[in-house]
Amino acid sequence: MLRALYDTEVAYLRALVSTGIAPVEVLEPFEEHPGLTTRASISDFARQARDGGNPVIPLIADLRTTSGPVTAHWIHKGATSQDILDTALMLLAQRVRETLLLRIDAAVSSLARLSDEHRGTAAAARTLTQHAVPTTYGLRFATWLTTLLDARDDLRALVLPAQLGGAAGTLASLVELAGNRAADMPAAFASAVGLAESSPWHVSRAPVTRLGDALTRLTDVFGTIGANVATLSRTEIGELSEPAAEGRGGSSAMPQKQNPVVSVLLRSVSLRAPGLASALHVAAASFVDERPDGAWHSEWPALRELQRLALGGSALLQDLLGGLTVNLDAVARNLALDDLRAEQRSLGGSSGDYTGLSDHFIDAAIARARA
Amino acid sequence: MLRALYDTEVAYLRALVSTGIAPVEVLEPFEEHPGLTTRASISDFARQARDGGNPVIPLIADLRTTSGPVTAHWIHKGATSQDILDTALMLLAQRVRETLLLRIDAAVSSLARLSDEHRGTAAAARTLTQHAVPTTYGLRFATWLTTLLDARDDLRALVLPAQLGGAAGTLASLVELAGNRAADMPAAFASAVGLAESSPWHVSRAPVTRLGDALTRLTDVFGTIGANVATLSRTEIGELSEPAAEGRGGSSAMPQKQNPVVSVLLRSVSLRAPGLASALHVAAASFVDERPDGAWHSEWPALRELQRLALGGSALLQDLLGGLTVNLDAVARNLALDDLRAEQRSLGGSSGDYTGLSDHFIDAAIARARA
Amino acid sequence: MLRALYDTEVAYLRALVSTGIAPVEVLEPFEEHPGLTTRASISDFARQARDGGNPVIPLIADLRTTSGPVTAHWIHKGATSQDILDTALMLLAQRVRETLLLRIDAAVSSLARLSDEHRGTAAAARTLTQHAVPTTYGLRFATWLTTLLDARDDLRALVLPAQLGGAAGTLASLVELAGNRAADMPAAFASAVGLAESSPWHVSRAPVTRLGDALTRLTDVFGTIGANVATLSRTEIGELSEPAAEGRGGSSAMPQKQNPVVSVLLRSVSLRAPGLASALHVAAASFVDERPDGAWHSEWPALRELQRLALGGSALLQDLLGGLTVNLDAVARNLALDDLRAEQRSLGGSSGDYTGLSDHFIDAAIARARA
Amino acid sequence: MLRALYDTEVAYLRALVSTGIAPVEVLEPFEEHPGLTTRASISDFARQARDGGNPVIPLIADLRTTSGPVTAHWIHKGATSQDILDTALMLLAQRVRETLLLRIDAAVSSLARLSDEHRGTAAAARTLTQHAVPTTYGLRFATWLTTLLDARDDLRALVLPAQLGGAAGTLASLVELAGNRAADMPAAFASAVGLAESSPWHVSRAPVTRLGDALTRLTDVFGTIGANVATLSRTEIGELSEPAAEGRGGSSAMPQKQNPVVSVLLRSVSLRAPGLASALHVAAASFVDERPDGAWHSEWPALRELQRLALGGSALLQDLLGGLTVNLDAVARNLALDDLRAEQRSLGGSSGDYTGLSDHFIDAAIARARA
Repeated sequence: MLRALYDTEVAYLRALVSTGIAPVEVLEPFEEHPGLTTRASISDFARQARDGGNPVIPLIADLRTTSGPVTAHWIHKGATSQDILDTALMLLAQRVRETLLLRIDAAVSSLARLSDEHRGTAAAARTLTQHAVPTTYGLRFATWLTTLLDARDDLRALVLPAQLGGAAGTLASLVELAGNRAADMPAAFASAVGLAESSPWHVSRAPVTRLGDALTRLTDVFGTIGANVATLSRTEIGELSEPAAEGRGGSSAMPQKQNPVVSVLLRSVSLRAPGLASALHVAAASFVDERPDGAWHSEWPALRELQRLALGGSALLQDLLGGLTVNLDAVARNLALDDLRAEQRSLGGSSGDYTGLSDHFIDAAIARARA
Repeated sequence: MLRALYDTEVAYLRALVSTGIAPVEVLEPFEEHPGLTTRASISDFARQARDGGNPVIPLIADLRTTSGPVTAHWIHKGATSQDILDTALMLLAQRVRETLLLRIDAAVSSLARLSDEHRGTAAAARTLTQHAVPTTYGLRFATWLTTLLDARDDLRALVLPAQLGGAAGTLASLVELAGNRAADMPAAFASAVGLAESSPWHVSRAPVTRLGDALTRLTDVFGTIGANVATLSRTEIGELSEPAAEGRGGSSAMPQKQNPVVSVLLRSVSLRAPGLASALHVAAASFVDERPDGAWHSEWPALRELQRLALGGSALLQDLLGGLTVNLDAVARNLALDDLRAEQRSLGGSSGDYTGLSDHFIDAAIARARA
Repeated sequence: MLRALYDTEVAYLRALVSTGIAPVEVLEPFEEHPGLTTRASISDFARQARDGGNPVIPLIADLRTTSGPVTAHWIHKGATSQDILDTALMLLAQRVRETLLLRIDAAVSSLARLSDEHRGTAAAARTLTQHAVPTTYGLRFATWLTTLLDARDDLRALVLPAQLGGAAGTLASLVELAGNRAADMPAAFASAVGLAESSPWHVSRAPVTRLGDALTRLTDVFGTIGANVATLSRTEIGELSEPAAEGRGGSSAMPQKQNPVVSVLLRSVSLRAPGLASALHVAAASFVDERPDGAWHSEWPALRELQRLALGGSALLQDLLGGLTVNLDAVARNLALDDLRAEQRSLGGSSGDYTGLSDHFIDAAIARARA
Repeated sequence: MLRALYDTEVAYLRALVSTGIAPVEVLEPFEEHPGLTTRASISDFARQARDGGNPVIPLIADLRTTSGPVTAHWIHKGATSQDILDTALMLLAQRVRETLLLRIDAAVSSLARLSDEHRGTAAAARTLTQHAVPTTYGLRFATWLTTLLDARDDLRALVLPAQLGGAAGTLASLVELAGNRAADMPAAFASAVGLAESSPWHVSRAPVTRLGDALTRLTDVFGTIGANVATLSRTEIGELSEPAAEGRGGSSAMPQKQNPVVSVLLRSVSLRAPGLASALHVAAASFVDERPDGAWHSEWPALRELQRLALGGSALLQDLLGGLTVNLDAVARNLALDDLRAEQRSLGGSSGDYTGLSDHFIDAAIARARA
């Protein structure tokens, strides 16, 4: 977060320079020292941020101290703390998204492979916990794949905007400083920080709720895949096994146990996210004035925690799907447990594997994964 | 909902006919009697649906009884209850969306008009409840307008899919009945019911959570506009007045009172929605097997209530914005309460209205509204 | 709800009489006509309540019309709508609680019986979905029993208060009307309506959140028992069977299926409640002024829905536990699936059933149930 | 948390000794070194806990390494990780509660003082944002006091139990080790750790949801007091001022501003808590088997965050109420803004201050505070 705040302040300076408002020399200190230098200063920031209720104020003080008088004069000039904080949150979200998409891509590849490999693995489909009709493991994986692709599409489609509006969303401070050139700043700042240009969204929080909702749709996928793997790993079912890893899933006192701990953690992540996303909506619905009396402050920790859950869960998911094993004996044994052709006979048929358009749906999911 | 279920079953028959699976005669009863005929039967449905845990079963029974043997043979043939219920939920959502978009359009027009009319109405901007710098009422309205346009865009962008997968998402029953023609059914059914074609999403619930999230982003807008109008109507502030209506907002015992009841109800709506949307995510994260053990059943009432909130709130919002009054005297009096030019002087300036790019942002919002 | 509102207005009149503020004749109409008389008037109330935003106003109008001039003069005299609504909500909650406690008592008896009957039924305990060590079905049921007793205790312990404060919690109107006798009204009203006496809680909402939390703790129990029965009914596990009932749990197309539909509905109920309870907390945290701008209005529907869920779920739970079957063959078969004595051997032992203090814990739970 | 885990493991050893199961020598290392010794080991714990998914396993390893062979043999003997973790969570909660109750007591004293001092400060009561009838600041504070006392009572009434059940809640391991003496362990362990004795609550989570709900009822109070102070501090209202503190609430660019930052943060805290508490209920409703597949793991971070919010908020509340100022001029000016005696005249009266039983309700709240 601190890195994102720092990068945002520097991007603001770059925009002041590129619009001709500030002289090019203000950027010199950042060419030499391309970032925050010491862990000591980071921990000082944290302390001062807590005392001041806002990490931007100590950051500015620090930058002014270390950057020489010309730069110090222009740092943060014309901006308000919310401009920096909201932009840094979106910048952080963009970086988180990059990592998430890489991990999702790996999980997508694994599921596409599993779908293809198991298109012929007939298995019992279960509805309301009971065996129903036949399906294939290929189709089961293709369904998970579709679910994951839906979440990936939502994440990709997010537009993450820079924020620039000054104390009350009018940009009056920049106009006072720079006259007509101020009108170029929203685009210049967005470009410098690598986010989308936007009108001020100080009290218009769709960028935040869209992000929170998309992250939660991703954790929903963690939950449904985790719940399925945990269920299908049950001692009595035994159709799936998590990848083995040194020191994972064992029990010191019960050496026979191999717990599906990755799935358990995925499910745990998914149960926590919806309450966090709901807090973002409660906040969005409570924005008053030109900056609200608490709703804004409640967004940061909920967003941070949602991003942590998404990052942790995506690593677990990649790992899980990269080494998931289908135990063909158990699948066949369960399939034979009872008669799954009752529906078929009620329709007058009896031959074939009764798996309908499974291959068609598998192909569609794989094609979408590869597109 | 019952109407949507009925229309879905009939659309399914149309698709069976258009794909050549069923003969054209099966549609005859619906040409003569284009809908459910008696209120008695509707109330019977409700009772049987409760007893059976599912409204589709009594609906089918009723349709079979009233439609003659040829049609009765084909009704619901090859489909599963979830196909009909999920599709009917999306059909209902589409109808709700149409109404919502009409009301939002009216509210958008009102806000565009108010933004334009009040671009010169200088007012105190408030941050953390305190006067900060000047703004204009035009910009304030333009900000609400942007917020509403964001929610409208999300609602418009929703893709509402038909559901067709049979007992376990394989469509085996249709293949058994119709062989290769079964593969044409997903597109034919989607076309007949007027929804998007999709692979089965029995246990892949992005269509539901996307809908819930978009509805909640709309109620978030109700909340923020309601909270702002309520705040700006406070006795001591008095800058805005809700439209007067016979019997609304008065108090029998305190005749001097005029309560901002529309805003109060909008805010009430917005506080209720986030918990409902979170229940949809919890459900989505808990889908196991080929139909889950409770998560699916928990979606219907949450979606229904969210749609009720969106419909009720949209009518209130349209009404509120259609007759909102800016009390110019109060705006001017509050603006003069204290010195709002401190920031300006700290930047070396003193002249002008210090409202920066307000007009520019207003123009952008109005242009987006008219696009 | 309308019945509770009516009873509350009449109780208010009784309190006015018992404190000597109003003459005894005002009660005459209610001795003759002990309640609301026609369904027509109820449906009229509903319509007027919607139009006026408040069911109390049309109720008062109706009561005044039908009760003669002496009574009409005193109806609602000195009270505010919130006094009647909040009190009626608590009265309704008390009636709901009575029904809930009866059903819970029946479920408690069933669980106590099952715990005792199955204290010798050795079974596999499962942790993180995997067989761990032995347990008994008696202890499993005793654990569910403890969970239910905890929820019952919370429900019983709720103090449901009457509300009486007038327009702003000062009771100034009653003092104006009745002088010193006004001070007797809070106790007299509470007694007449059968609720606890309390200072005004117009903007102090612990009575509402405590109720919502206790109801949710009850639905949590529905969820955990429902999830356990559904899991233990899985085709591959088969240890438990729900009671059979005509037309329940079957599938027309798949006659071999017997779905655990009661457990599925219990789990569905439990997934919906937490979001509703969270809305009550968001409301409580948003109460401002002497009556807030939306938070109060958002409580009613959330409370009503929570009570519906609790009532519906309690009937299902009573039914489920009254006829739950333990399939001893399946229990024994699963117990033999793998070696559950590894922990025991690691401690140096090998003999006995390795079920520790199961009987002791069963006895404790049964004793608590019977206390 | 680590301190609580350590203390719990040591208390377990003390219980083994006090029941005569383990020899008294096992406690010797803890008499000499009464705690964890190095920060290095704490940070190692954190790393190993993350890798192993559980902080208990590295803690045990560390304790065994540093405590000599006799003690090492008995550490954790017969217990399961969940026994230690659940107990440590309750121990931590007890310590948090102590701090909370001290701060609440200070806030209670401040509110009792404010209620008494301002019993004669007539002020406008506001309902639905509009002036309604007169009240007094003393009654307003007394209402906040009642709200806080309700939350305090709930927190005090919490019973925080120790957890002891072994791998599956049977305590079979302890019985294997110690025979009949095992039955004394639940009481001995509870006593050693200073918590309440309880049957195993491994999958019966009322202790967790009761704690989460009580903490949320406390943050609800933070919210309502914060929202009221923020509202009553509005520039146009100005009736209350937060205590001034160096560097707090100011704005560098707008020196005239004094933001009610403490209230803003209190309100922010209150908007975040309900979603966290709802996650605890979702978890409780999802407990299956003898240890569930994710629900248990989702409790820890939600509880930790709720406790952080309660601790942070309680410090803010104590600070706020210790120095809150009532601006009598503004109160009087607002009271005179309009006619608040309309209700009084409609009842036939006109004289007196029309504040009813305010003093009576103030006295009741103060008496309850002092009880």
